[in-house]
Amino acid sequence: MFKNSINNLKEKQPLIHCITNYVTVNDCANILLGCGGSPIMADDEKEVEEITSICNGLTINIGTLNQRTVNSMIIAGKKANKLNHIVLLDPVGVGASNLRTETAQKLLKEIKFDVIRGNISEIKALALGSGSTDGVDAKVSDVVTLDNLDEAIIFARGFSKKTGAIIVITGAIDIVTNENKTYIGYNGTPMMSKITGTGCMLSAMTTAYCCSNVEDLLVAAFTSITAMGVAGEIAFDRLKDFEGNSTYRNYILDAIYNMDYETLERGSKYEMR
Amino acid sequence: MFKNSINNLKEKQPLIHCITNYVTVNDCANILLGCGGSPIMADDEKEVEEITSICNGLTINIGTLNQRTVNSMIIAGKKANKLNHIVLLDPVGVGASNLRTETAQKLLKEIKFDVIRGNISEIKALALGSGSTDGVDAKVSDVVTLDNLDEAIIFARGFSKKTGAIIVITGAIDIVTNENKTYIGYNGTPMMSKITGTGCMLSAMTTAYCCSNVEDLLVAAFTSITAMGVAGEIAFDRLKDFEGNSTYRNYILDAIYNMDYETLERGSKYEMR
Amino acid sequence: MFKNSINNLKEKQPLIHCITNYVTVNDCANILLGCGGSPIMADDEKEVEEITSICNGLTINIGTLNQRTVNSMIIAGKKANKLNHIVLLDPVGVGASNLRTETAQKLLKEIKFDVIRGNISEIKALALGSGSTDGVDAKVSDVVTLDNLDEAIIFARGFSKKTGAIIVITGAIDIVTNENKTYIGYNGTPMMSKITGTGCMLSAMTTAYCCSNVEDLLVAAFTSITAMGVAGEIAFDRLKDFEGNSTYRNYILDAIYNMDYETLERGSKYEMR
Repeated sequence: MFKNSINNLKEKQPLIHCITNYVTVNDCANILLGCGGSPIMADDEKEVEEITSICNGLTINIGTLNQRTVNSMIIAGKKANKLNHIVLLDPVGVGASNLRTETAQKLLKEIKFDVIRGNISEIKALALGSGSTDGVDAKVSDVVTLDNLDEAIIFARGFSKKTGAIIVITGAIDIVTNENKTYIGYNGTPMMSKITGTGCMLSAMTTAYCCSNVEDLLVAAFTSITAMGVAGEIAFDRLKDFEGNSTYRNYILDAIYNMDYETLERGSKYEMR
Repeated sequence: MFKNSINNLKEKQPLIHCITNYVTVNDCANILLGCGGSPIMADDEKEVEEITSICNGLTINIGTLNQRTVNSMIIAGKKANKLNHIVLLDPVGVGASNLRTETAQKLLKEIKFDVIRGNISEIKALALGSGSTDGVDAKVSDVVTLDNLDEAIIFARGFSKKTGAIIVITGAIDIVTNENKTYIGYNGTPMMSKITGTGCMLSAMTTAYCCSNVEDLLVAAFTSITAMGVAGEIAFDRLKDFEGNSTYRNYILDAIYNMDYETLERGSKYEMR
Repeated sequence: MFKNSINNLKEKQPLIHCITNYVTVNDCANILLGCGGSPIMADDEKEVEEITSICNGLTINIGTLNQRTVNSMIIAGKKANKLNHIVLLDPVGVGASNLRTETAQKLLKEIKFDVIRGNISEIKALALGSGSTDGVDAKVSDVVTLDNLDEAIIFARGFSKKTGAIIVITGAIDIVTNENKTYIGYNGTPMMSKITGTGCMLSAMTTAYCCSNVEDLLVAAFTSITAMGVAGEIAFDRLKDFEGNSTYRNYILDAIYNMDYETLERGSKYEMR
């Protein structure tokens, strides 16, 4: 299942242009290096076209966006589209402010995304063009469970059909879907929500996976999500007395660095529908 | 002493809006998650009102401020005041430039702060409206010692009376005071000054403590300061051969993540005046 | 060889003004604290003159530059020149966009640099005023090897003569040169390229070394480069099963924190020409 995706990434070493928030940017850079890619961060409108041109893919993450960077996102996204680069959207906190909601809608309208990744509240707010989130975390009332999973899949497939993007909804249960095929992932740990940036890191890494596996983006995206979940479990098992969320962050990054397809196959828990 | 404060924080899981510098922002997010709160960073003037509205408290930290973010600080602070949210000021490096001094004065004038936290040089520069600091560290000539402690307390109480805020002065000796009651803390280690951001992290965490304990902000703030000091000591005791300031940073965050009131009671060294 | 440089730095504890990218800024601050210096980050044009005035040296790093910060770099650099402070340029990604290339040229024209540090592709792009880099990493075709080392030294000496700056080219082989004397360093590990920011950190630390050793900047800069390489090797030797690039980053910072001249002398591998 995962062998080609992970090996292609390690072999192709794609360069990923990240326009991303300043909270988790260092972790995004390190996870890209760890998984086999390479990062470049640039957000000035005067250089984003050139920078994205020398890259293989583009991640647009709207956390800590500001009016200056919004314009850069549009310019970079259009250029990446023109070059047929992989483009991913991480709509951090969409629904929490009009600026984020309007920016996300504008991005959706102006740019063709290959992948959109967020938590369930973010993806709902994005699909509905409004709505509310509890900051950057999913609302309790939104959480995907075994009981509402079918409904969530139908919703995600519909949004995939509308946007043409692979939709990735992460949480205790992960959904990776196009309009008619869905992978459901059950890896990860609750403690992953005690670290800032697991979502941002995952988005950056997913861009790298997709760049390296353009012939099957759905499997590529799901490989990335599974790698993060399995890394979360490996890291959790390493935790010793006195260790907490900071060490856990290091262990997760370390696990991505050491990930190979055997570990991934052995650790993965998923189904396909 | 500390039981209610720490348990309330873990139970209420307050969401904290941080307008803060880009140097230590990741650590601020992780300490908020570690202590039981949740962070959201947003600094564009178009969204700070909405963002702060969905939060329980606001931290304003003027490190790496720029003219764009200064305006956002004012807007967010006023909104938070209107909503009766807890608002904390960390006047990083005030006195080191006119921009910082004037910004801090403007913030003091336009916003009602519940807590102001800095090192002794910063609090002096803030109270005097001028003065000089040695960058972001306290000047040697300013340092609070057992010899000048009485004087420092009188100064801090006076500034509390003037501003209506709880004044927190951190250093080898910590002072947490309102205009007539003072806690003096003796926890922490000199090595904490070998990590960037212990002050910023403490400010973010103190906002979370105060949001969760509005009925006794003085104890809440002092609990936060003590938690940081005890975490610094636990982390220091864990250091092994070859380990240095980077591992120490991780250990401090880990200790905050694992902190409970028994550890805090047992480790705390303080007096009340 | 290294004794004076490292001891002077630990004794003088220079304060370093960093105008640097938001990707690796936290690591830059922590390495400055670890090596014995102290960091202050400030990038608003309204305060950079004052901030740089209270410091001992200035690092200008053009990663994630934007039009606002470019102006601040010029202002700070000119002021630092006027005060005879050490000024270092790290031309991150120069050649990857016109904005970076033009900014770097403008900086070279308006500011007198004491040290310029980059990878071989960056230094070539800077010297030629054009050229291309593969993002922020050196191009494979540019890499300095034993076969083209003589040529690289001639080029670096020429650029030193032209700019009056010590030229530092880092990679598997490190070159530290003025116009007629060159140190060639062989420390470090390939895994250092799997962490973001080793170059940025090295630039920040090199500024601190040079501030503390103005009577012999060439040895000071080479001591810094050697310290980083030896730290990379010590950190690599500490890596255990399951550990990866995140832990490696911590170990490198830890090794800088614990570095002394005996360790440096014992670990160093270099020649002088």
